[in-house]
Formats: sequence, C-alpha cells, structure tokens
Amino acid sequence: MSLVQDLVVAARTLAEHGVIDAYGHASARSDRDARRYLMPRNVAPELVTEEDILEYDLDSNPIDAKGRAVYHERFIHGEIYKARPDVMAVVHNHSHAVVPYSCTGIALLPIFHMAAFVGLGVPGWDIRDAQKGSDMLVRTPYLGEHLAKVLGKHPAVLMRGHGSTVVAENLPRAVGRAVYLDVNARMQTEAIALAGSDRPIVYMDDAEVQANVSWQNYERSWSLWKTRVLARLAQEQGN
Amino acid sequence: MSLVQDLVVAARTLAEHGVIDAYGHASARSDRDARRYLMPRNVAPELVTEEDILEYDLDSNPIDAKGRAVYHERFIHGEIYKARPDVMAVVHNHSHAVVPYSCTGIALLPIFHMAAFVGLGVPGWDIRDAQKGSDMLVRTPYLGEHLAKVLGKHPAVLMRGHGSTVVAENLPRAVGRAVYLDVNARMQTEAIALAGSDRPIVYMDDAEVQANVSWQNYERSWSLWKTRVLARLAQEQGN
Amino acid sequence: MSLVQDLVVAARTLAEHGVIDAYGHASARSDRDARRYLMPRNVAPELVTEEDILEYDLDSNPIDAKGRAVYHERFIHGEIYKARPDVMAVVHNHSHAVVPYSCTGIALLPIFHMAAFVGLGVPGWDIRDAQKGSDMLVRTPYLGEHLAKVLGKHPAVLMRGHGSTVVAENLPRAVGRAVYLDVNARMQTEAIALAGSDRPIVYMDDAEVQANVSWQNYERSWSLWKTRVLARLAQEQGN
Amino acid sequence: MSLVQDLVVAARTLAEHGVIDAYGHASARSDRDARRYLMPRNVAPELVTEEDILEYDLDSNPIDAKGRAVYHERFIHGEIYKARPDVMAVVHNHSHAVVPYSCTGIALLPIFHMAAFVGLGVPGWDIRDAQKGSDMLVRTPYLGEHLAKVLGKHPAVLMRGHGSTVVAENLPRAVGRAVYLDVNARMQTEAIALAGSDRPIVYMDDAEVQANVSWQNYERSWSLWKTRVLARLAQEQGN
Repeated sequence: MSLVQDLVVAARTLAEHGVIDAYGHASARSDRDARRYLMPRNVAPELVTEEDILEYDLDSNPIDAKGRAVYHERFIHGEIYKARPDVMAVVHNHSHAVVPYSCTGIALLPIFHMAAFVGLGVPGWDIRDAQKGSDMLVRTPYLGEHLAKVLGKHPAVLMRGHGSTVVAENLPRAVGRAVYLDVNARMQTEAIALAGSDRPIVYMDDAEVQANVSWQNYERSWSLWKTRVLARLAQEQGN
Repeated sequence: MSLVQDLVVAARTLAEHGVIDAYGHASARSDRDARRYLMPRNVAPELVTEEDILEYDLDSNPIDAKGRAVYHERFIHGEIYKARPDVMAVVHNHSHAVVPYSCTGIALLPIFHMAAFVGLGVPGWDIRDAQKGSDMLVRTPYLGEHLAKVLGKHPAVLMRGHGSTVVAENLPRAVGRAVYLDVNARMQTEAIALAGSDRPIVYMDDAEVQANVSWQNYERSWSLWKTRVLARLAQEQGN
Repeated sequence: MSLVQDLVVAARTLAEHGVIDAYGHASARSDRDARRYLMPRNVAPELVTEEDILEYDLDSNPIDAKGRAVYHERFIHGEIYKARPDVMAVVHNHSHAVVPYSCTGIALLPIFHMAAFVGLGVPGWDIRDAQKGSDMLVRTPYLGEHLAKVLGKHPAVLMRGHGSTVVAENLPRAVGRAVYLDVNARMQTEAIALAGSDRPIVYMDDAEVQANVSWQNYERSWSLWKTRVLARLAQEQGN
Repeated sequence: MSLVQDLVVAARTLAEHGVIDAYGHASARSDRDARRYLMPRNVAPELVTEEDILEYDLDSNPIDAKGRAVYHERFIHGEIYKARPDVMAVVHNHSHAVVPYSCTGIALLPIFHMAAFVGLGVPGWDIRDAQKGSDMLVRTPYLGEHLAKVLGKHPAVLMRGHGSTVVAENLPRAVGRAVYLDVNARMQTEAIALAGSDRPIVYMDDAEVQANVSWQNYERSWSLWKTRVLARLAQEQGN
C-alpha cells in the first residue's frame, strides 16, 4: 500500500465525512525524502486519483506539475513541514462545527475520547495578525510561516473565519484527528448549551489525554475508510 | 459548455445541497440577448434536463413555452435583471438556516470566508410592506420590483418567512453564494449560541470582504458539481 | 393513477424524508365509499407496495386482511374520518423536531410559508388526559375519539411524547403538511434561540395564512416524490 | 434465522444509523450456553459478515479466534453478562447526542415513547472513579466489572466522555434501545433549549414507562433493518 494511494483514501474520506467539501487538502511528507511532501494537484478532494498526486519541495514548489494547477494554500503544508520535523501529515479543512470556535475565542476542550488530542491544546490563529485586509487565504510563504508559529508544538490550529489545520506523525492519525475534531466541537457546543451557566462540564484531564494520545492512530477507522474508497474506485473504473 | 447545460448543473446541484427542494429556481441572463433570461419550466429542480430550459423576456413572459407551465415566482428573476444590469444570474431558494434570520431582524454577517459576500450586506424584505394578506409568493411584476428595490446593490436579499434570493455576475458565483449563505447562517447561529451575551464574535472586516469577493467564483466547487451532475445525467440516460 | 399507488408513494416519501421511520402511517379515505379508508397492513412504510394496502371500515376493522397483521394505532385514522367528513387523508408520524413542542406547551406558529397551515392552529393532546398509565399508543376507539376531539377543526394535533397527526382534504396535501410541519418546527426552534428574550419573531399573520392555505397542495413536491418512488419501485422489481 | 446472522444485522444497522462508526459493538449471549457470548472479531461494524462472529467465555477470552484480533473493550460485554443473568444482548456505542449528558450530570429522561426504557434510569459512570489516568477504554476485567456495578439493574449506562452501553433481554430490543436513546437525547436537548428556565417539560411518568417497556421489542424496526441488511449482503456477494 503506497503513500500515494493513502493520499487518495485520505482525500476521499475527508470529503465523504463533510470535513472538507471542494476545498481543503491532505498531504504527507515523502517517505523517500524528508524535504519533500506529496499532495494532490488543484482538484476537488472527492475526485482525487493517484495520477493527481504531485510532489512539492518544502518551499511548496511542485517538482513536476506538468502544467497542472496547484493549491493556492499549499504554503500551509510546506511551512509546517519545515517548522515541525516530527510532522508527517497535514490536513487543512473547513469543517463546520469548528469555525464558531475560531471566531469566539472559546477554547476547544477534549470532551470526547476519540478526540483526546484536543487536550494537547488547539491555539487560534487570526490571519489579521499577520496581514490586514487579506482575502483570508494562506497564499504566501510568510502567511504559512506565521500560521506554523502559532501552531507551535500543538496538534491543530484554528484559523479564524476559515477552518483549521491538523497535523500528526502519520496520515491515518491526521485524517482521524480532522474527522473527530469536528465531532468534538459539536459535542462541546451541545454540552455548553445543556450545562448553561450553572453546571460544570467534565472534560478529559491531562493524564487521560496523554494515555489516549500515546497510541490513538484510528486504525480500525482507517481500515474501514480504505475499504470503502478502494471499493468506490473499483466501481468508478468499472463504469 | 452551454449556458443551458450550466442551468441543469445549477438546478440539480442546489437540490443536492438541500438549498432548494421541489421549490426554488436558478436563472441566467441570456448570453445572446441581455433582455432575455433562461430558466426551467415549472418542474422540480432535481428533475431538470436541458429540454426544460425556457427563455423569458424581462417582463417574465416565456418566449415559447409550448404549452408548458412556468414558475409563478418568475418575476423575482425578471425584475432583478431589469433593475440590475450587472446581474447575470439569480438563485431563489428556501434554505433552512437562513429563514430564522428573515424573521428576527438579526443581521447575517460574514463569519465564514467562503461566504465573504455576506459582508456586502444582505437586507431583509417583508412582503407585507408591499402587499398585505399575500400568500407570501412573488406572483406579480409589482412584487418583484418591490423586492428588487430592497435588494438594491447587494448580493442577496432575505424574504421574510420564505427564504432568500441571491444574485451574481455569473452562474457559478450565484450557485456558490446560495450554497455558502446557508453554511454561513448555520455557523453564525452556532457562534451566537456559543458566545452568549458576553463574548464578541469576530467577523470578516470590510477589507477582508472586498479582497475575497473580488475573485471568488467557486471554481473548484463548480467543477466538482458539474462532474457530479454530468455523471448522474449519463446514468439516467443509460437506464 | 390510483389511490392505492398514491398511498405507496406517500408511505415511501414520508420514510425518505425521515418524517416516519419504521413507525407512522398514511391513510386515505376511499374514493369509492366514504365509510371506508385505505392504509397499509402492519409493515414498515419504506417497504410498502400496492399489495400491502388494506381497506378498513370507520371502526377500523380491516375488511379483508387475509390474516395479515394491522397497525395497532389504526384508530387514529378511523376516528378522525368519523369526526371530520372533510378529511380525506391522515398522516400519523414521529418527526423529531416536533416532539419537543408536544412536551413543553410552546405553540407551533407559522414561521415558514410552506407550512402556512400551522397558522390554522395545532393543538396539543396529552394521552394522560384520556387514560392514565397508558403505553402512549392509541390502541382503542376511545383513545382515537379523544384525540379527534382535541384535533377539532384543526389541520394537525401534537401528541405528547409521541409525535403528531396531520390531516387534509387530499393525500398530497397531508403528506406535504407532514413534511413541512417538521421543517417549520426546526426553523421556529432556531428562531427562538436566535431571538432570545429580547427580539420579536415575525410569523405569518392570519390573512397570509388564509391566502396560502387556500391553494397549497404541494403539487410540484408531489410530482417529484411520485417520480422518485416509481423509479425506485421499478428498480426493485428489476432486481 | 440464526443468532449469528442477527449479529450481522445488528452491527450493520447500528452503523447505518450513525449510532456506531468504526467503533462500538453489539453482542448476544449464546443461545446454546449461557456462559458464552457471541461478538464480531475486531472489525468495523459496517463490514461485519457471519464469518467474523466469534464466541467468548464470560471472562472475555475468545474460544477459537484463529489468530484474529478481538475488541479491546470486550470486557464491557463479558462482565455485564456475568453480573446480569437477565441480559441477553449488549450494545456499546458512541452515539453523538448522548455524550453531552455523560459530561454534564444532566439526567436523561424519557421524553419520547420509543425510548420509554430511559425512564427505568440511566446512571452515569466515570471511568476516573475506577482508574485515574486511563485512556478512557474499558481494557480490563476490573473496569468492566466496575461499569457493570454502576449499570446495576438499569437498561443503560452513560460512560463519561465516551458513550454508553445499552442492555436488553434480546438483541432487537438492545439495538432498538441504542437507536432511540440517541433520538431521545436529541429531543431532550431541544426541549431544554426551547423550555428555557421557565417552562416545565412533561416526561413520561412511571406508569407510562412500565406499560410501554413491558412489550417494546422494536419488532417492526427489526424487520425493516433485517430486510435492508440482507439486501445489502446479497448485493455485496453479487459484486
């Protein structure tokens, strides 16, 4: 199973879960050269095939795009791979339940064990702190670098009015984190409404977070997602 | 790729996203005669084919309906094309998250960058100001004209207890705006609940809105939507 | 197009919209004998075919069930047809957004023009007023009669902790009302949350309700729903 | 119809309803030996086939796994079967609407008649009371036993930040309860928001709960679910 195929599984799985729609992208650091990463050309994730996966250097120049367009926001990926040698996969997304947190300054907290990583801290980034009057997109190395600094050592960063970027030590973990970040946000929003101003909400504590994060690679999910996507690809090719 | 085919893509895409159900309609100004517009006959959007697209003059008379019924609310389209020479496409819809804004006087604000156009202002229209005791439908040129006046130079107008009408300089932009208007409304509703009365919500500022609106044509979305609809049409014809 | 076929379309459409799941049922007064009504045997609505449609008298005895089981709650239908000679179709359902209104005494009001009929009044019925310690089901003629009395001349009645029953002068209207009652409830719930305690919500007024209710038969919806169901039935028979 | 086939129907039905995703599991006590239970090997529920169903003793040792991996949290099942001779089926799940109740201490109450069993009491279990710094999973007999004690004689137990476990006297009842526990939670959350601090919410009373729980086996649902799953299995085998 190649990393290229895994990136097809990642893109289509994120689209199927509504974590990304036509926008958003998943990348992985190359397993042959740590100064390169792999990501699709500019195409909607649910249409991605292996032929769409391009290689980029860490300045986010495509190595051999063969004239194909690339994502404007590829600098999110390149600059994070530069700043974080431990990161092997990056998912940028617009999942809906997360955006309200990016605009209100309310901290996302680990309410659901499948999203224990939230307990490692999810800082908020406002593009306005880096550039006033932007169109909200991370279109330059400078903006990517600024975002990567706010991400720091954390597993995810909120982007005000835009979405989030999630990172991990491998691709299944990054995809699983993106899926469950959205679930955690929805549960937290409901719990806040239920609890009102009177009742405390019990979140995972630091020890619980550490114990869970240490191994959680969403393996059973990843196996399911791969099965689904490969079946769909086979069906598309059969048509 | 013809405008007629694009209108089929638009109708079915809006239905697939739940922005319209059996009701609602998308139109485009004719690319051959600025005093004409194209829109389906009276049929549910998810069933539209190229044969259903009719031509109307700006008084919303069908040019050659061949006995087929037309939408009662076609005057929404005709009167806006009259009043706004810059408008090339119109989408009228009932998307669910938007209606509560139409009834409460709470302003929709640009919380999500994909709906930056909301920052250009989305006024609210109450049909009761034009006609008391109506059945809520824009059934006459007068009502269409009244709506167009409240729309003014804005990209969208809310219709109390009914839905909204969204306009743009091209059809993909109008469809994308209708899709993301609903997403913006849902995010704003959640942010208001989360923030309560204490916390401020950070919306896009005017410079950010302008920088984004200047180019946002939802091109990658449109490409995806067209791919999906053409595949479905091929499948229907194969059956 | 026979009434029997229309009842298949009704059952499957309501299931597809999530207005009913395995439970809930749609019936129609016979077009040949006003003292009879037609309704499926005891089967999940999304599986209904023409062979499942039975005839009942107004005491809810099946005329010729051929040993097949019937719905326990058929008395909802029979007793309403007795009490309301104008009613030609009845839909009993558990649609989710409506139940919270049945338990809180908050009045459903006509916020959305597709559900204008809500403005004719939707009373609430508590089975506890008729029978203490019931299992919540309308299992007897007495309970059906009690419900019909609270329904009175209205188009729908809420059933506490259970769901609602919607009536109309024809089957498409009853199905459309059941679908849009749920939509209206969701919009009203969101509007109440948005408006908080400060802002008024503008509902349809009586004149608007009357002007809309007078003609609204959900014709375009019905045509779409029939197209969908007949296509699915053809596919099932082809398998 | 064998219990093995019923477990396939259960797993896939729960996945289809979103009550479980790649995680969660349904088991049944063996109908041949009350000291054994049946449950799938470690696989995503929507992929389960009859070949995946393994037998376990009540210490949750698989009898003949043939090298296949088993669920880490199987002790939930084994320890409950030990403590509760009346229990014939167990469903562990992460359904989303329930989790906020597990973290806030707000009692789930029987608002919807399809979930009358909630009125028998749904206690909350916090794994932290049994083990500090856990990874939130029920990985040991001790944790399973601790959970079973808090479950007591009730039909379900909430698991803080994790989900719930639902039990019953037969498998269709356990699956139905898991499905409608989530629906009840969603309705209760909406009712609480609607009612605010002023209005009372009318829940089912004890007599109503008892009258409903005495017979509710979700038979019509189960019949529908079985029909759906068997059709899907036939389709998969035909491919």
